[in-house]
Amino acid sequence: MAYTYEYPRPSVTVDCVVFGLDDSADLRILLIERADDPFAGHWALPGGFVDMGEDLDLAAKRELEEETGIKDIFIEQLYTFGAPNRDPRGRVISVAYYALVNLSEHPIKAASDARQAKWFKISELPPLAFDHNKVLEMALERLRAKVLYKPIGFELLPEKFTLTDLQNLYETILGQQLNRRNFRSKILKMGLLEQQERQQNVPHRPAYLYKFNKEKYQRLSERLGEFIFEIRFQPRETED
Amino acid sequence: MAYTYEYPRPSVTVDCVVFGLDDSADLRILLIERADDPFAGHWALPGGFVDMGEDLDLAAKRELEEETGIKDIFIEQLYTFGAPNRDPRGRVISVAYYALVNLSEHPIKAASDARQAKWFKISELPPLAFDHNKVLEMALERLRAKVLYKPIGFELLPEKFTLTDLQNLYETILGQQLNRRNFRSKILKMGLLEQQERQQNVPHRPAYLYKFNKEKYQRLSERLGEFIFEIRFQPRETED
Repeated sequence: MAYTYEYPRPSVTVDCVVFGLDDSADLRILLIERADDPFAGHWALPGGFVDMGEDLDLAAKRELEEETGIKDIFIEQLYTFGAPNRDPRGRVISVAYYALVNLSEHPIKAASDARQAKWFKISELPPLAFDHNKVLEMALERLRAKVLYKPIGFELLPEKFTLTDLQNLYETILGQQLNRRNFRSKILKMGLLEQQERQQNVPHRPAYLYKFNKEKYQRLSERLGEFIFEIRFQPRETED
Repeated sequence: MAYTYEYPRPSVTVDCVVFGLDDSADLRILLIERADDPFAGHWALPGGFVDMGEDLDLAAKRELEEETGIKDIFIEQLYTFGAPNRDPRGRVISVAYYALVNLSEHPIKAASDARQAKWFKISELPPLAFDHNKVLEMALERLRAKVLYKPIGFELLPEKFTLTDLQNLYETILGQQLNRRNFRSKILKMGLLEQQERQQNVPHRPAYLYKFNKEKYQRLSERLGEFIFEIRFQPRETED
């Protein structure tokens, strides 16, 4: 088959940055080893060409499932990368997506154009194919900015969690330790957490469990367009 | 000339949502009247096809200048729209950009594919071609969210401004009136405004002028990735 057009056209791909929290609350990135050229044998973000009748986010979900087995996750558009020489095959414009999942709930299985799929620690990333290091960098920046003004990430914790669990999650995503007293006061001041019973059967003094009040968050969100998660955390050095 | 490919390819365009503040601090949108089909004679966002050797943001700036005469402005990528049937010509994926400018500093002049270019009040928008109403809606949402966590818009005011000028700017962008005392206290609490001398030659009690401290903002921004502009404004009804 051949397709002929009056003007030259670019190819369009999608790429997915999937962040996963592991059991030690470490942040990982899902990568695939490419089976085909260009960059055969290199690690890359899962992704591929958009079909002609397919919506962009559906293409991202399809490619992610084909190459890594991950499905039924919430993905969000990140940015579109279109530097003229970013792909040795010619002009390829890529729409990047990102997601944050609980790693243990999403077993992976490589197939299609992927020789293997693997969760890498951020501190142990291999060099990536194409401009994927840049894509990943931007996704990480977006995730870190977002966690400061939206209650992202609550869905990664069990329904009831301690403030220490929540602080660990924030510290993992932000990549830095936070002042404990400041964190607790800022988080509780939001008024979105509901205190529950104390922990049971723990080898230390049991802490209170909390639930995230999603309904209240929805209501507040509608007040001024986007509700501002009013937090300016202090780093750990300021511990008092 | 004809271009032949093994697989079908989409076309890729760019579209620009340019917000402009007029002399009465009203928010306007720059639209063009399309000269050609599809949608000839309809109003649309300025934009057009990306050239093969051209970066996406350069394409957006080029199309904007060709169709409206506006140049040398800071534009930011908004979102990529790729629903399979968004364009009657076939599969056309559009990378949207947005910008906020001072209207009086950017005279417009229609040319190229635009029959005319015009600043429309948000309250008086005509129906737009393609999915441009949806694009504009998202740009407005992004602008409103952004103004709550980044000191966007300061560059639209003169170097020295009153808190009333600043509040008018915020009210215009947010599309709602804010509680005066709450606005002043939140804005000053940021610590990014420097008090200057009082106004001169005004027919009312002269107010203090302020300057935005860009250097301090830059320093704070670097502390936790993205500095959080810690503001949760109260609507005007809560005036005390």
